[in-house]
Amino acid sequence: MHLSEITHPNQLHGLSLRQLEDIARQIREKHLQTVAASGGHLGPGLGVVELTVALYQTLDLDRDKVVWDVGHQAYPHKLLTGRYKDFHTLRQKDGVAGYLKRCENKFDHFGAGHASTSISAALGMALARDAKGEDYKCVAIIGDGSLTGGMALEAINHAGHLPKTNLMVILNDNEMSISPNVGAISRYLNKVRLSDPVQFISDNLEEQFKNVPFFGESLTPEMERVKEGMKRLAVPKVGAVIEELGFKYFGPIDGHNLAELTTTLKHAHKVAGPVLVHVATVKGKGYALAEKDQVGYHAQNPFNLATGKAVPATKPKPPKYAKVFAHTLTQLAENNPKIVGITAAMATGTGLDKLQKKLPKQYIDVGIAEQHAVTLAAGLACEGMRPVAAIYSTFLQRAYDQLIHDVCIQKLPVFFCLDRAGIVGADGPTHQGMYDIAYLRCIPNIVVMAPKDEAELQQMVVTGVNYTEGAIAMRYPRGNGVGVPLMEEGWEPIEIGKAELLRSGDDVLLLGYGTMVYPAMQVAEILSEHGIEATVVNARFVKPLDEELILPLAKRIGKVVTLEEGCIMGGFGTAVTEALQDNDVYVPVKRLGVPDILVDHATPDESKASLGLTSPQMAETILNAFFKSKETAVVS
Amino acid sequence: MHLSEITHPNQLHGLSLRQLEDIARQIREKHLQTVAASGGHLGPGLGVVELTVALYQTLDLDRDKVVWDVGHQAYPHKLLTGRYKDFHTLRQKDGVAGYLKRCENKFDHFGAGHASTSISAALGMALARDAKGEDYKCVAIIGDGSLTGGMALEAINHAGHLPKTNLMVILNDNEMSISPNVGAISRYLNKVRLSDPVQFISDNLEEQFKNVPFFGESLTPEMERVKEGMKRLAVPKVGAVIEELGFKYFGPIDGHNLAELTTTLKHAHKVAGPVLVHVATVKGKGYALAEKDQVGYHAQNPFNLATGKAVPATKPKPPKYAKVFAHTLTQLAENNPKIVGITAAMATGTGLDKLQKKLPKQYIDVGIAEQHAVTLAAGLACEGMRPVAAIYSTFLQRAYDQLIHDVCIQKLPVFFCLDRAGIVGADGPTHQGMYDIAYLRCIPNIVVMAPKDEAELQQMVVTGVNYTEGAIAMRYPRGNGVGVPLMEEGWEPIEIGKAELLRSGDDVLLLGYGTMVYPAMQVAEILSEHGIEATVVNARFVKPLDEELILPLAKRIGKVVTLEEGCIMGGFGTAVTEALQDNDVYVPVKRLGVPDILVDHATPDESKASLGLTSPQMAETILNAFFKSKETAVVS
Repeated sequence: MHLSEITHPNQLHGLSLRQLEDIARQIREKHLQTVAASGGHLGPGLGVVELTVALYQTLDLDRDKVVWDVGHQAYPHKLLTGRYKDFHTLRQKDGVAGYLKRCENKFDHFGAGHASTSISAALGMALARDAKGEDYKCVAIIGDGSLTGGMALEAINHAGHLPKTNLMVILNDNEMSISPNVGAISRYLNKVRLSDPVQFISDNLEEQFKNVPFFGESLTPEMERVKEGMKRLAVPKVGAVIEELGFKYFGPIDGHNLAELTTTLKHAHKVAGPVLVHVATVKGKGYALAEKDQVGYHAQNPFNLATGKAVPATKPKPPKYAKVFAHTLTQLAENNPKIVGITAAMATGTGLDKLQKKLPKQYIDVGIAEQHAVTLAAGLACEGMRPVAAIYSTFLQRAYDQLIHDVCIQKLPVFFCLDRAGIVGADGPTHQGMYDIAYLRCIPNIVVMAPKDEAELQQMVVTGVNYTEGAIAMRYPRGNGVGVPLMEEGWEPIEIGKAELLRSGDDVLLLGYGTMVYPAMQVAEILSEHGIEATVVNARFVKPLDEELILPLAKRIGKVVTLEEGCIMGGFGTAVTEALQDNDVYVPVKRLGVPDILVDHATPDESKASLGLTSPQMAETILNAFFKSKETAVVS
Repeated sequence: MHLSEITHPNQLHGLSLRQLEDIARQIREKHLQTVAASGGHLGPGLGVVELTVALYQTLDLDRDKVVWDVGHQAYPHKLLTGRYKDFHTLRQKDGVAGYLKRCENKFDHFGAGHASTSISAALGMALARDAKGEDYKCVAIIGDGSLTGGMALEAINHAGHLPKTNLMVILNDNEMSISPNVGAISRYLNKVRLSDPVQFISDNLEEQFKNVPFFGESLTPEMERVKEGMKRLAVPKVGAVIEELGFKYFGPIDGHNLAELTTTLKHAHKVAGPVLVHVATVKGKGYALAEKDQVGYHAQNPFNLATGKAVPATKPKPPKYAKVFAHTLTQLAENNPKIVGITAAMATGTGLDKLQKKLPKQYIDVGIAEQHAVTLAAGLACEGMRPVAAIYSTFLQRAYDQLIHDVCIQKLPVFFCLDRAGIVGADGPTHQGMYDIAYLRCIPNIVVMAPKDEAELQQMVVTGVNYTEGAIAMRYPRGNGVGVPLMEEGWEPIEIGKAELLRSGDDVLLLGYGTMVYPAMQVAEILSEHGIEATVVNARFVKPLDEELILPLAKRIGKVVTLEEGCIMGGFGTAVTEALQDNDVYVPVKRLGVPDILVDHATPDESKASLGLTSPQMAETILNAFFKSKETAVVS
């Protein structure tokens, strides 16, 4: 049977083990080819090919509900649920999404892009099922990395307390999040996973027996028998911690052995109450290069399958913002032992792996645990350290309360570095960094800033590290800088709340924030071709806003445009509008940014074009708003 | 020694056990008297009197750092750290705060009002200590209730992975959060706590022995000896789960036995690495009524110490918003089995205990786990249920990402009911519900509404339950309604996005939101006395805003005032300002609400007065802004 013939996962039901193995092989092949061509998540999906096949062979997907944590490992799921034909459009505009989406496919029972949500969602489905008196199965598949996220543990705590609620949690244990996993739970799982179950316990027993005085070096035969018996009764203890939490434990089982998987799953499906199936998998399984470098092959740009090397860019690109950030921070940290970089399992993404390598004592990876990361930073700040919490814009949503309650209310100097702020491209709605300006600036005791380019980012890193009055946040985008020269040292902090005047003109005031400053300059050029001269300001700070510079300009020029890469509601443009109102300057403000919609996956350029945020589009909008014949109702 | 003589906790160092017991007695007495007179948290503090005394006797508070989770149990701490004299001002304006505050006292090493933060903060302090090469102790005291919060588990996972980092976690296990605790962890702790350690394990062993074939009914003497030996070596297993997570375990110990406490703590302080001391306490200890009714005496209004009865209000008050909410929801749920009320350990506070009693199958308490609560709700919504997540405004901050990522991005119909929105009074900054309007309205796919009174709240409960297009949120205040008549049934939903015109006048447009609608009417009356006639609108919805009604009014009247009980930055007034700008209506908007500061504890009326939000103050502000001679710079 060819994989392309499978349009419904239930087609797996009748297949033999041999056929299933063949399907698994085809999935792996298609998966590899597609990601090599389009880019995307490689290791996570390759690790769960057999698990997906086995699971769907033992479920009825027309009835049963499956929730994949994060969803970046769900490419095999996609290939078994009618998306084979379109799979080459992976992560491309209007193509198959890189994560699960309820609106994309009826078998995507719950979407996710962030970690640790699956058990909560599946438990909700299970409780709904029981309330409705139905009896379908609810299954969450969660990685050991996601298990470091507190909400997964909250869900386990809840589910383990409901012995009558049938729920299966499959622990996909590959010892990794994106980087090698951290934490005591992970260590425990490894202990369980890497040991022969019987051996593991009997080793412990052996040690314990030594401490009992009446057990000598030599045991009587009867006692030997007792000891052997003890070993056997101790075997179920492998999952002791999990069983204490109310789950029936199965495992660890080989996640690449289809026979073992299907047998165990079939058995586990029959068990009532909460069940945890512990599956040991290898991230990147079946592609030697990915098995060897699991961090590097977590997600990939297009690459050559034979060599594993990334397809070279057509022309050299400026360094990534993340890289410049990490480089600058590391430089500063070398001279300031109080600086500590904190990441929530995003060492490579944030660039902090550089800090880790150079100054391991000034680096902390807490696991996928943004909440803990932020309050840990608050504790560090209490004792005079300079914590730098590098967390993507979208993931800082996870620690919003900690930012308010533990940092800002206590006015503690924590420096938040929000990578991936703005449009993120192929990752889509769950990863867009759209809301940070709005959700940060309404909180007291925090400075909110954004650099116009990678050189200003360097200055802002110094600014953030030097600021001691309270919290300070810097947002910067995914991807490459604009290509300006960088300094190797000697950066000067920027005065808090000081904007920068870049261009002067009398017809319209363009206020750019962060990534939209260069486009604002381009817009000014286009407007100039139409005989309209713009003043352009790099706002730098949305909080505090440079009212001293902006208000007189707005008053004099009388037409204001704000440009930002974030939600318009409550964002930078709103801050400007508020400031004008509060200071009795009643002039038109055209706010350009992301409207109140979700932005789907596409390239950043495609997204910007569809949002009307390319420079020519914005120039056009401004011309229409202010310079074409149009009556504006101005009431004094 | 009299308690009043203790102004520094280190004064406990030289005291005998007898003297310590006497101090404990005095703390309990003062605690009881003060809370009876002023109101405040009763049970939590009474439960940790001995623990606090013993801990401070074994620490050097000039060096060592102590982090109390939540902080509502820290009244004994306050009485030992120089606040005895002022303790009668508890929770009153400019008096001693009800929670810990770094700015109040140097021994308040970390403030908190929300649960589950202490281990993260203490670990941060411990890591800072080690980085600085110092050696003070870092101690977190956390309740078993707070342990249901995911971030506490994140912190344990991290700390348990750092064997070289000295950290003490004291588990104050009273089997309660505010209500009896839920969850598998709690059940496990109870099992440990309620059993004699040796007995507990040997019971298990006995059972296990039965399963071993060669152990018959009667054992040989030698085998009996083996069994006894096994019991002994099994004893440390009491804390097996905790030890697997990397913590050394001490306990359970009697939290009201000073001798046992000091001995154990002294011993535990000497142990390297992460240590967990499991202390069994009784909430409300020493006050029989509180021991008996631990939920009722968690926190109290002023009451008669002898009878335990609340001091009666001087005049009868209208029902609380929470009560009306719960009553209405329960009525609706009776006729709609799809409605499920969800609380995160706030059954009584949200009023959902009423639903629990009447329709237990339609009620879920997940523990102090807002993140899980919201994604669980999303899961329920996927399967056609109508989840109603009743979470205080300030606590929903904990689930911000879940609200965005799991609910709004997937457009799932979850109904969020935000109690304690706005000014909360004596609980102070950590509990103020200031930010919800700002942090909710920037997210797509959510309706955000607020009722003007308890009757409209009833209608909005129906509105929320009936709404299926996506998420919907309703905010309402702490405390009593305004006293309007209530309907027992037959409530009609309000059309989404429809505001209500309450009064017409040509001079100024007052747009009130939620609790500020009645004050807006009062303001209109005051203005009328000055010959100024106001139009008053009950906005009801901040998202979607009723532009159809508001824009023409604003255009015609030309002067707009917005009134809200929430942060001005990004709030309701901002939404109005944005709408006017986006529709080319350039008129002055005076936004009244909470400025960009933290609001300290005080009565709500005192807070409003200090913020200029009483009706006469607001009328005055409006007169000054719009109707006294003043030049406004209007530029077209």
